[in-house]
Amino acid sequence: MHRYERLADHLRERIQAGFYQVHERLPSVRALAQAHGVSLSTVQHAYHQLEDAQLIEARPKSGYFVSPRRERLPAPPVARTAQRPVEVSQWEHVREGTCVLPDTSMHNLGRGMPDIDAPTLKPLLRALARVSRRQDLIGLNYDTLHGRPELREQIARLAVGQGCRLHPDDIVVTTGCHEAISIAMRAVCEPGGIIAVDSPSFYGALQSIRAYGMKAMEIPTDPETGISLEALELALEQWPIRAIQLTPTCNNPLGYTLSEARKRALYALAQRFDVAIIEDDVYGDLSYGFPRPVTIKSFDEDGRVLLCSSFSKTLAPGLRIGWIAPGRYHERALHMKYVGTGSTATQGQMAVAEFIREGHHEPHLRRMRAQYQGNRDRMLDVIESAFPASTRVSYPAGGFMLWLECADGIDSVALNQRLMAEGIRIAPGVVFSATGKYRHCLRLNHAVFDAEIARAVSRVGHCVAEMLTQRADAGQPETA
Amino acid sequence: MHRYERLADHLRERIQAGFYQVHERLPSVRALAQAHGVSLSTVQHAYHQLEDAQLIEARPKSGYFVSPRRERLPAPPVARTAQRPVEVSQWEHVREGTCVLPDTSMHNLGRGMPDIDAPTLKPLLRALARVSRRQDLIGLNYDTLHGRPELREQIARLAVGQGCRLHPDDIVVTTGCHEAISIAMRAVCEPGGIIAVDSPSFYGALQSIRAYGMKAMEIPTDPETGISLEALELALEQWPIRAIQLTPTCNNPLGYTLSEARKRALYALAQRFDVAIIEDDVYGDLSYGFPRPVTIKSFDEDGRVLLCSSFSKTLAPGLRIGWIAPGRYHERALHMKYVGTGSTATQGQMAVAEFIREGHHEPHLRRMRAQYQGNRDRMLDVIESAFPASTRVSYPAGGFMLWLECADGIDSVALNQRLMAEGIRIAPGVVFSATGKYRHCLRLNHAVFDAEIARAVSRVGHCVAEMLTQRADAGQPETA
Repeated sequence: MHRYERLADHLRERIQAGFYQVHERLPSVRALAQAHGVSLSTVQHAYHQLEDAQLIEARPKSGYFVSPRRERLPAPPVARTAQRPVEVSQWEHVREGTCVLPDTSMHNLGRGMPDIDAPTLKPLLRALARVSRRQDLIGLNYDTLHGRPELREQIARLAVGQGCRLHPDDIVVTTGCHEAISIAMRAVCEPGGIIAVDSPSFYGALQSIRAYGMKAMEIPTDPETGISLEALELALEQWPIRAIQLTPTCNNPLGYTLSEARKRALYALAQRFDVAIIEDDVYGDLSYGFPRPVTIKSFDEDGRVLLCSSFSKTLAPGLRIGWIAPGRYHERALHMKYVGTGSTATQGQMAVAEFIREGHHEPHLRRMRAQYQGNRDRMLDVIESAFPASTRVSYPAGGFMLWLECADGIDSVALNQRLMAEGIRIAPGVVFSATGKYRHCLRLNHAVFDAEIARAVSRVGHCVAEMLTQRADAGQPETA
Repeated sequence: MHRYERLADHLRERIQAGFYQVHERLPSVRALAQAHGVSLSTVQHAYHQLEDAQLIEARPKSGYFVSPRRERLPAPPVARTAQRPVEVSQWEHVREGTCVLPDTSMHNLGRGMPDIDAPTLKPLLRALARVSRRQDLIGLNYDTLHGRPELREQIARLAVGQGCRLHPDDIVVTTGCHEAISIAMRAVCEPGGIIAVDSPSFYGALQSIRAYGMKAMEIPTDPETGISLEALELALEQWPIRAIQLTPTCNNPLGYTLSEARKRALYALAQRFDVAIIEDDVYGDLSYGFPRPVTIKSFDEDGRVLLCSSFSKTLAPGLRIGWIAPGRYHERALHMKYVGTGSTATQGQMAVAEFIREGHHEPHLRRMRAQYQGNRDRMLDVIESAFPASTRVSYPAGGFMLWLECADGIDSVALNQRLMAEGIRIAPGVVFSATGKYRHCLRLNHAVFDAEIARAVSRVGHCVAEMLTQRADAGQPETA
């Protein structure tokens, strides 16, 4: 444990015990350094950590203050899922959401699009232009099947921050996390096989299960504590499940992070039943707390975890650069990579490697985490005031997605149709289920937040309220 | 028919009838224009066409001359294939060839790499750099699932030259032709299903068949006339084949182009047995003749042809930009595209669209076709002088690949091992077969040709000769 971490822990305890009150000014950096006999930068580090954890906030020219504890809106309850493996449907709704071009006249709150307009991302644009001008033409050449060595080196380096020891040769670069998940599923499961998933779950993973002729066993998932290990154990006992696919850190769409203890318990379950774990960590680096939570992969001792991630949420999705660390399934994964795309586009890989090597990655992440956390609270404020009181909403620990549950019977597919006429898109809940559950739920993107987006979110809320009134007027019975 | 085409036909007949003799000088452009009452540019167009067809050649400051007719080396015979569907093996050999980084100290004659160093490709580098600097950040954003509209527009426009009428919405952009073929197979065939392929065949397609749990029915293919329609018909009668996958234009690895009549007959067979055709046209635009041969897709009346292609052989493979025109399988193809990679990297698409729109594509193709055709003949000269007399070799109608058949018992996998120690790579024949046939064959890349490559090819030939002598000395019996 570093000196600054010990100091941060000490301060955290004092805040939580009420020694420092809400809105109270904390000691100055200089005073604290003197009091504890540490350097100024150690105190600054400690304060940054508490800031990341939302316990304190900096006010320009005044110092650090204890943050107010937020009154939280109620979280959605755990959903009941089918207690058997099911075929995945809902493609028509996923298709509708992914066959759209970027359109500045539209407020697309439905897509998993990060903010790509941050100044900390500018060095990436410069790196891309530099790579295009390189006279050795490496960027135009076939890449090796594994991906550019300099990028895999940087990915392995970053993995240390996730508690992972990876060698560059453990990593295969992919065309986005999409290809990583697709590779993982085909590497561990045959057509007809069963894959357990958290529920609600990322629709891309669900649609892969469909495309490869597999079945999904949806496991009830708590919006605060994550996938139910009890339900998972029961499912593993009853069905010949081949793999567990989930997003345990900064979950999409719920936002929770599975605690380290639960991650370990899940890994132990996977060992006991000898199944693989497909760990989607695509939002993991956007965890608001510091240091970021460890991956399940970090305690993988027998290579059963296939870690899938990408730079689509942290840098830019248009680059389509992801990766997989497939553990003991390396050979099969490499074959699946080969038949899927041959190799990954070269220039983007080179530019991202340069961006990280030059030290731009960490400052960019720090900025985006703060922005996304701030936007979460701003959007929650709008939701609280604009949505009917019956609404339930998630309280994400990272990323840039909010999950809302409306009153039973509110049809978010119809809601989306209605909103699109007004230039607003949401992600209807049905796509996060194999069988079209969560029709009364929706996901909103808070990567960017300004007055216009606030108005759009407000409009979504009013629209839900209108639909609720219309239902009451019509005296319709509630349907699930 | 254009005026210049009529004139070219007239001249062609005269050359073929012996009116103009080999090495004889043809009339000057001015004289011909006067004699036929046409413009100078019409005559120039006609001469270009005959030049493309290798009937005449331009000599600087002297005019046009009738080309010598080449003494051709014997072509390999048609191979005998298993007369039943088989599982695909050989991944270890394919892996070996694709897990290599570009290495300037190595003469890699094994890979399907075009020459990316041509001056006519420079505008593409400039377009890439321009796209990277764009302030609207479209290149960093998620693309729509189908691919950038401006690129699909250009692809549809180019398709006219292949005899195809495609709407931009008929096209889905993919991560190289690799993804296109992978999509096509999954769109038309279930795991366990049978796909008929030309043999020898592109190893990427064969490995896809393996990865998706399908079986390959290899159809004997003549190095000059292409896939045997008789054998194909027999196979279609006997087995529940779902699709025919082949490269009918500038075949890889054999280099032949199926005649239009045979393409039509193949299409009729597919109609009669109600199977899909997966047409790989990745080398089609590099056909030495002008206009380029039409695709099978061009007479597809019921949407059963899935046309797969890319810019990997014509522009640069590192961009990973391909496309599929999946006909009646559009919806399924779109789903497979979605689960495979989500969408295609954006910037490369934008740059290629710009490159074509600005008129750089056709001049580049013209240059590359001439270069590849010239290199074919240069490399054939070296092969003739350096390889044992028992060698058979293809005479490609386009592309940049030569297929060599050595004496029975020459092991091209061992040959490749031996050559690698000397910094030379070849593609051993085994990878072009589902079951490791063609062990005595190899494929050589003639995209680039210079004194060093000539020495490398020469070295390959001498190595084969040595192996042949060693075999004779050891008195080994010949094995297939």
